[in-house]
Amino acid sequence: MRDNLPRLGEIGLANYPPYLMNRIMGRYNAAIRAEMAKLGLTTPKMRALAVLSVIDGQVIGQLAVHAIVEQSTLSRAVDALEAEGLVRRQVDAADSRSVRVFITETGRAAFESLWPHMADTYQEMFAGIDPDEQRAFVATLQKIHANTRKSEV
Amino acid sequence: MRDNLPRLGEIGLANYPPYLMNRIMGRYNAAIRAEMAKLGLTTPKMRALAVLSVIDGQVIGQLAVHAIVEQSTLSRAVDALEAEGLVRRQVDAADSRSVRVFITETGRAAFESLWPHMADTYQEMFAGIDPDEQRAFVATLQKIHANTRKSEV
Repeated sequence: MRDNLPRLGEIGLANYPPYLMNRIMGRYNAAIRAEMAKLGLTTPKMRALAVLSVIDGQVIGQLAVHAIVEQSTLSRAVDALEAEGLVRRQVDAADSRSVRVFITETGRAAFESLWPHMADTYQEMFAGIDPDEQRAFVATLQKIHANTRKSEV
Repeated sequence: MRDNLPRLGEIGLANYPPYLMNRIMGRYNAAIRAEMAKLGLTTPKMRALAVLSVIDGQVIGQLAVHAIVEQSTLSRAVDALEAEGLVRRQVDAADSRSVRVFITETGRAAFESLWPHMADTYQEMFAGIDPDEQRAFVATLQKIHANTRKSEV
């Protein structure tokens, strides 16, 4: 198989999906970053809030996987969010060794004020791409995600 | 339009393409990082070599866009690559104010030894996804890329 391996120059950067995805996400993340900065949020802080706005009350390890942030970086982000009153830590009622992170109303409001910018950027990405093609694209992304998934949380 | 904006919790993280793409690329980049480290390469250095292996002799600004690395970071990466003999800078024959970056044979060999790991990771991502679906996926990525593209180089 290695003998038949095409070279990157043969595939071409513009046809190599990891390259295209890195390019696209570089733009998306940069577009969001400016709006985040206005709210005093960094990427790890924003991602923690985004994830908690959907699934609240996660333990740090779980939150790190969902937020795509290394656990040590995520811990510091949660410290900062807690100091700013955007999240709170609470010992798990069922397991006192386990601490869960919850988004506060202030945290939810901060994410809600960022979300329209994220949604706009997302809509710009998909301009002129019809709903069927979008659905097919998401279905393929979900298969790739399942293939690349190492830790189930 | 803003009035009808769905919330992230309604879309669901697992159906939100920017989230899925960030998750997937997080895994892809992490998988490559370990192999890069063995070669003494960082992400900006690896990306510069990858891009130059396909389109050689780029000016720094162009290379930064193609490599998806901020220009100041890219400049430092090129300094390091030059010191290690993996690239060389050369004044443009037609425009003496312009400096172009070329990959050396050593640089090409370094990238070629990394490429099989990148290609394997890429193949794992697409395991069980048939060629037609892969082609459709790449076509959609190219449309999204065109939508998000701000600077043409």
